[in-house]
This record gives sequence, C-alpha cells and structure tokens, in this order.
Amino acid sequence: MTRVRIDLFASLDGYASTTDATDENPMGEDWGRLTSAYAATRTFRQRVLGDTSGAGTTGLDDQHAAAHFEGIGAEIMGAAMFGLHSFPDDPDWKGWWGDEPPFGTPVYVLTHTAPRDPIPMQGGTTFHFRSTTPADVLAEATGAAGGLDVRVGGGVSTVRDFLRAGLVDELHVMTAPIVLGRGTRLWDDLRGLELTHTVHSEVADSGTIHVTFSR
Amino acid sequence: MTRVRIDLFASLDGYASTTDATDENPMGEDWGRLTSAYAATRTFRQRVLGDTSGAGTTGLDDQHAAAHFEGIGAEIMGAAMFGLHSFPDDPDWKGWWGDEPPFGTPVYVLTHTAPRDPIPMQGGTTFHFRSTTPADVLAEATGAAGGLDVRVGGGVSTVRDFLRAGLVDELHVMTAPIVLGRGTRLWDDLRGLELTHTVHSEVADSGTIHVTFSR
Repeated sequence: MTRVRIDLFASLDGYASTTDATDENPMGEDWGRLTSAYAATRTFRQRVLGDTSGAGTTGLDDQHAAAHFEGIGAEIMGAAMFGLHSFPDDPDWKGWWGDEPPFGTPVYVLTHTAPRDPIPMQGGTTFHFRSTTPADVLAEATGAAGGLDVRVGGGVSTVRDFLRAGLVDELHVMTAPIVLGRGTRLWDDLRGLELTHTVHSEVADSGTIHVTFSR
Repeated sequence: MTRVRIDLFASLDGYASTTDATDENPMGEDWGRLTSAYAATRTFRQRVLGDTSGAGTTGLDDQHAAAHFEGIGAEIMGAAMFGLHSFPDDPDWKGWWGDEPPFGTPVYVLTHTAPRDPIPMQGGTTFHFRSTTPADVLAEATGAAGGLDVRVGGGVSTVRDFLRAGLVDELHVMTAPIVLGRGTRLWDDLRGLELTHTVHSEVADSGTIHVTFSR
C-alpha cells in the first residue's frame, strides 16, 4: 500500500530550512551545517555526487539516506523547490534540478501560476504542474506511483500543509544537534502529532538525532 | 571545581514550560505530559514522593534523575519558581516548596521586589533574596557551594538569562517526544550553543531524548 513519506532536516531548535542566503553566498552558511552529516554519507556521495569510490559514512545516517531513495513512485513538491519562482517569466526554464533530476519518477509541482505543460526530463523524471489541494494532488500522485510510496519533498511550507491535513504516514526528521536561531520553523501548529503517530528516535555517531513519526 | 548546571524538560518543538494552566486545572495538561517519563522514575518516586517501595523505572531516565540531585551545593532560581509573585503582599509567605524543600542547600531567589530577610527551612534549605545580575549571584552561590556545583533551577527565563550570559557549564534537556505547540520557548537567542559546548544525545526506553551540552 502506498505510504506518504517526508524526509527533512531540522536543527535542535526546529528550523527546517535556512534563511541566511545572500547574493555572495546563495546557499548561506546554515544549510551546510544543517546537512553536514547527510553530506558525509556514502549514499549521498554515490547518489548525489556520483562518487563511486565507496567513501563516506556507513552508519545510521547512511541507512536513513539510503532509505530516502527507496520505494518512491511519485514525488510532490512546492513551486519554490522546483524553482518556479526564480525565473517566472521564462517558459523554457526547467527548474533547479539539471538535465537528469534525481527523482526518476513523476514529480507534481504545486503552483498557483498559470498552467504549464509537463516537462519530461532524462532519467525518468517528468514534472507536472498542478493548482489544487494537497489531497487532490496526492490522489493523482498515488495513482501514478503504481503501488510504491509518494514522497512530499518540500519545501517546509508544502510539507507542513500535508502534515496539518493529516496526509502523511511517515515523517523522518534528521535533527542536527545545533541551535540555528533562524530559518523556517517546522513544528508550529502540529500539536499532538505524537497522538496520531508513533515516535521513534535514534542517535547516530555523528550526533544526529533521527526522529521518525509513523502510522 | 564548581560547575554551573541546568536540568530542564522540553518538548520536541522546544517548549520548556507550559502555559495552559487554568483556575480549574492549575498545573494544566501539558506539564504532566512533558514530565511523565521523569515522574515514572524510581528516583522521582523516592526523592519527591517518598515512595520507598523501589517502584519506578531504572534506565537512562532514572540515571539522569538521580544525577540531578547529586553534588549540588547551592541553587539559584527566579522569583516565580520560588512563588514570590503569587502572594506578593504576604511577608510570611515561604514559597511553594513546603516546610522541608527538596534542595537542602542555600537557594538564591532573584527578585526585583523589596529586600527580604533570609528564610531558613527544615532540611538545610535557606532561601536568600537578591536583586542583582546573574554573574553576581552566581559568584555568591559559588562561594556558598563549598566546591560543589551550583544549579540554576529555573524558570525558563532565568535559565535563558544564564545561558545567554555564557555562565552555564552543563545544560541537560530531557526532551519529550511530543509536539506541544504552546508554552515558553527554550532555544531562542541561543544560536551557536554547540560551538561553545559539546553536545551529547541519548534516547531512553521511554522515547525521551536526553540532550546534554557541556564544556
């Protein structure tokens, strides 16, 4: 049965995305600190950097990194994560994700802007653009997933929309043991999530606290 | 050498005290949920409830509960934790803590109200009232602690004053795997605490995440 899954990074103080980007440093400083344990994993090095040397950590962080890529049949993301807001007037802009995006599945991009045709990419990814509710796009993505899971990829506001709507079966938060003090807050308005889901936490050698809510 | 220690409860979303008290339910619902793993420990049952049957959990939660009571030579708390705000006009009011408070040490109560004489209690606790800075009251408490540690007991705003002033050697946060969505926030304005302290996290059988910052 299809499960709806979310994987996120967060700091100890609950910031799941960072807001310190500047023109000089478009990623900011905080994002690298938030994701450093993930970036050190063998899975990240293989899957994202194309490093086939086998380098990288292989413990709990890597197990979760590998699980992120397994069993996904369709993806949902917000317009900003696709990159729609960055070049809104360029009809040929195909997003941030390069010629061969790392999804390999249908990807449903939620947007309030004018309809666009689907964009087929190399490697099995096709971007579809939808202006609809979380429940409706999830129904379509579930159909497209062919029995595999649907991942809500982000950003944080999209993830929070799905969580608040009660549509998420598994939320995995890779919690970095750092206090950022700024960014986008994950947990607001999610009171009682532990009443509908079971919580399981584990600490990796990196100090990362993996917190998983599942139902 | 004297170390300055703090023990706190917090929810996964970073609320370290609760704000849902009503006249009908003066403790509120949230406090019991935040502290339930601690209340289940053998140490709490013995030390706070006087239960000598040996009942209670004996794992990681209990180890931290026992450590809370060990090696403390003086305590610092805010006026509200003593109870000074509750009956401000009663010069005979001796606080919330009963005839024999569980401290057994000098306790320095920070207050901006008029000076009060010290209040000696049964069991070795004496309450002293001070209107001064965190650094100054800490110097006095350190002298009184006779080489043992000083605990900053609370409330959250007092704890945060000491943390922001860089005066704390050990912060232990007993993090309940619940999302409260309301209360008093612990982590604000503490960005970079992991740069001055080492962070260590462990997960108890109860699901509680024990996060300790130490230097």
